Amino acid sequence: MKPVASPAASAPVRWSSTGLVVDGSTPWCQLLAFADTLLRGIGQVMLQNNSYAGLIFLVGIFYNATLFGLAVLVGTAASSATAMLLGVERSQLRAGLFGFNGALVGIALLYFLEPNALSWIYVVFAAAVSTVLMAALFKLLSTWNMPVLTAPFVFTTLCFVLACARFGRLQSTQLLPTAGLPKNASVEGVVSAATVVQGLFNGVAQVFFQGNVITGVIFTLALLVASRLACATALLGSLTGLLVAWLMGAAEPAIRSGAFGFNSVLTALALGSVFLVLDAASAVYTLLATVATAVLFAALSAALEPLGMPALTLPFVLVVWVFVLASPLFTRLRLAVNP
Amino acid sequence: MKPVASPAASAPVRWSSTGLVVDGSTPWCQLLAFADTLLRGIGQVMLQNNSYAGLIFLVGIFYNATLFGLAVLVGTAASSATAMLLGVERSQLRAGLFGFNGALVGIALLYFLEPNALSWIYVVFAAAVSTVLMAALFKLLSTWNMPVLTAPFVFTTLCFVLACARFGRLQSTQLLPTAGLPKNASVEGVVSAATVVQGLFNGVAQVFFQGNVITGVIFTLALLVASRLACATALLGSLTGLLVAWLMGAAEPAIRSGAFGFNSVLTALALGSVFLVLDAASAVYTLLATVATAVLFAALSAALEPLGMPALTLPFVLVVWVFVLASPLFTRLRLAVNP
Amino acid sequence: MKPVASPAASAPVRWSSTGLVVDGSTPWCQLLAFADTLLRGIGQVMLQNNSYAGLIFLVGIFYNATLFGLAVLVGTAASSATAMLLGVERSQLRAGLFGFNGALVGIALLYFLEPNALSWIYVVFAAAVSTVLMAALFKLLSTWNMPVLTAPFVFTTLCFVLACARFGRLQSTQLLPTAGLPKNASVEGVVSAATVVQGLFNGVAQVFFQGNVITGVIFTLALLVASRLACATALLGSLTGLLVAWLMGAAEPAIRSGAFGFNSVLTALALGSVFLVLDAASAVYTLLATVATAVLFAALSAALEPLGMPALTLPFVLVVWVFVLASPLFTRLRLAVNP
Repeated sequence: MKPVASPAASAPVRWSSTGLVVDGSTPWCQLLAFADTLLRGIGQVMLQNNSYAGLIFLVGIFYNATLFGLAVLVGTAASSATAMLLGVERSQLRAGLFGFNGALVGIALLYFLEPNALSWIYVVFAAAVSTVLMAALFKLLSTWNMPVLTAPFVFTTLCFVLACARFGRLQSTQLLPTAGLPKNASVEGVVSAATVVQGLFNGVAQVFFQGNVITGVIFTLALLVASRLACATALLGSLTGLLVAWLMGAAEPAIRSGAFGFNSVLTALALGSVFLVLDAASAVYTLLATVATAVLFAALSAALEPLGMPALTLPFVLVVWVFVLASPLFTRLRLAVNP
Repeated sequence: MKPVASPAASAPVRWSSTGLVVDGSTPWCQLLAFADTLLRGIGQVMLQNNSYAGLIFLVGIFYNATLFGLAVLVGTAASSATAMLLGVERSQLRAGLFGFNGALVGIALLYFLEPNALSWIYVVFAAAVSTVLMAALFKLLSTWNMPVLTAPFVFTTLCFVLACARFGRLQSTQLLPTAGLPKNASVEGVVSAATVVQGLFNGVAQVFFQGNVITGVIFTLALLVASRLACATALLGSLTGLLVAWLMGAAEPAIRSGAFGFNSVLTALALGSVFLVLDAASAVYTLLATVATAVLFAALSAALEPLGMPALTLPFVLVVWVFVLASPLFTRLRLAVNP
Repeated sequence: MKPVASPAASAPVRWSSTGLVVDGSTPWCQLLAFADTLLRGIGQVMLQNNSYAGLIFLVGIFYNATLFGLAVLVGTAASSATAMLLGVERSQLRAGLFGFNGALVGIALLYFLEPNALSWIYVVFAAAVSTVLMAALFKLLSTWNMPVLTAPFVFTTLCFVLACARFGRLQSTQLLPTAGLPKNASVEGVVSAATVVQGLFNGVAQVFFQGNVITGVIFTLALLVASRLACATALLGSLTGLLVAWLMGAAEPAIRSGAFGFNSVLTALALGSVFLVLDAASAVYTLLATVATAVLFAALSAALEPLGMPALTLPFVLVVWVFVLASPLFTRLRLAVNP
């Protein structure tokens, strides 16, 4: 990250392999840097500090729904701006680390709440809160060199959606689960080739709460632009989640929708392409984690049923925390980065 | 805290601006020190290490109900005595840090459980447990220089009230919420000037679970005796919580009762008058936290609905933890004290 | 634990007071070492690094039900083998520290789920996950020198049983509580001498989820073989839990079944015979913890009612964490070991 003294480096704005590098301080430069920060923030939802990937993710979201495209922009901007105004370290800001939780908060709140003037204000405020939560968890988890992941998004969204049970001027959409008591499932529907193909790409799309196969394909291409390894692990993660759900007898519509895939996509990405050096041992370890993520998704979605709340990406967060935290005790594994 | 060598300092008992200073070790001196410790413990419920404020709080509670006045005395005494017998550091004990959780446990258990011989024994035991929990959280949170706040009270009370679902000899009062599944709220009642004024002072009174406007006024005066800044932030906190609830369409009776105020009172007090150096940035930060507290109160009271449990001061605890933990990453803020 | 240079020490396999000591590295030696590791793992369920105790526990379980005997062997083997393959430190492995959570996961999953081919695969996978969770919590809690206890078992089991609400090919048994909303209890049944005697030994038996008085007697003998102090504290713990439940008016069948005893058995064992130096102060402290465990069992079993989940040994885990964490602040107590 250190600037290299070279003739090229003297240009105030230039392209790098992951996006813009802005050294100038004119208002125009700052605006470009902020736009690049937003795209990196959107990219970081899938752990990619990469503006190009972020831009393609954004295209995929707008392809599915303009509302969610706007929501992701507003959320990312509100959380990044809050971080900037409170004075976080510039390198973290520019890497999009204060953007991705706001991005997801923006989408999720407008996914679960009817849009009106108040809910947009709510989105901006919630995204600002997610920035404070990001900083808090960053401090907390640095004790163990653990990554924050999307935990600020999960806790902020659960809190702001749950609050609607007391706030009469916010109404939930039909997409919010109805509160009920969990009971034993029975096998529903038949899994076909269409279930598998649609479930595979919906699993990638659902990382941004987009139930759209084409959006899933666009997201996969975005990952390919950023990293071939990331693209491969994401697809394998989605497939693993889907196969576990099928084997255990989960309902076919849920498998098709990608519900059992998106957390496994993120776990596979995080362990398989970011935090561990890829070898035979870490591949098995990542597989174990990806399967565990699918089981934990089933468990947490049942655990949140009495509240009528969705599990969001909490299974991914908890599994990666546990598997990263445990890794130093396992001499067969090598950590790739200080998360 | 170091004793200054001076003629005045040689008196075994003397007044200071925050209460008694007791240097003697006669039984009479020890009794006076213990009484002063209890009053400081009651004062610490609103973060005031101040016997005078503690005494006026006690007057306000007895004004509302003798039962709660006795409960607060028994709870504070039981938790402070447990700490003394187990051998905690004297300066912490004398500052009331092992009293305030017991004070609240005492009131809350007799607020939610029918008083009888068994429930009084239960109060003494629960207050003793709150002291162990205080020491445990003190150790845990010292890793990040974080304050314990009223967390021991919240966890002890939730545990001891929940246990009634298995213990046939304890009966809950009508004040305990009925267990149910959360559902979307609709706007109820019309907020008037009376709602605002009553809600403002009830918000202060509810910090000790007292639904009484006059008690709220007495508590406000107690804060004024201890610190003008504390008094102002507490009232602004109550007002903020109330206005957020009104804006979002919360039910009028809940707004009037101060339910949306008391956690915001505590958040405003903690961040605005204790942990941050007050300037423009920290004022905005405190406002953000105070609004977030009102939203979190709505969320947690819904989250605890399937258990029929109240949120108590958990929203305050969680928000202040998050905002204190995050503050070192925000260069615009200055921490006032090592919490 | 250091090997002593002596003629006897040159034998590749020899008996010690707690089980086998294996220095040789032939396949036969390794098999013996693994068998000894399994028995120590079973022994560690009651905090005994002792193969003889583990063997007698196993006898007690097989006496009650062959299914659970097999389950405990499969669970212990799967979790220990996972730890070995991932490369944990040998001394921890050999002490059974990566076995006891798997042992309990094995029993608990087959206690709550109908046995079939899929549920046995599920047991093996869950036991492997419990090993990763053990390593993670070991790293996390080492910050405060805190023991992990049976937390990996509790979280793994809750997760894997809850997941059945989404997995149609796994069915729960009649032993899983039905999901419902907690409500105030009334006194049920009359406690007799038979209740007390059966409850006392069932409390010990329920540590392994065995509702069988004779199994409880066998377990008590196993503890006697390992340590007289452990045996005495376990019985006193069971008795304390039972008496608290009786005093508070818990239902007679629950008291008789040992439900209020097994967590108190473990708390008494942990604080009274492992983590604290036994003197008057620590005896009182242990008693306080043991009573608190019985109250927390009542609270957590109510808290998990909306999910239809059992409290397992979570009350023991939380109480011992709190009481161990708090102990350095209490100058009257002396810690016996670095947990």
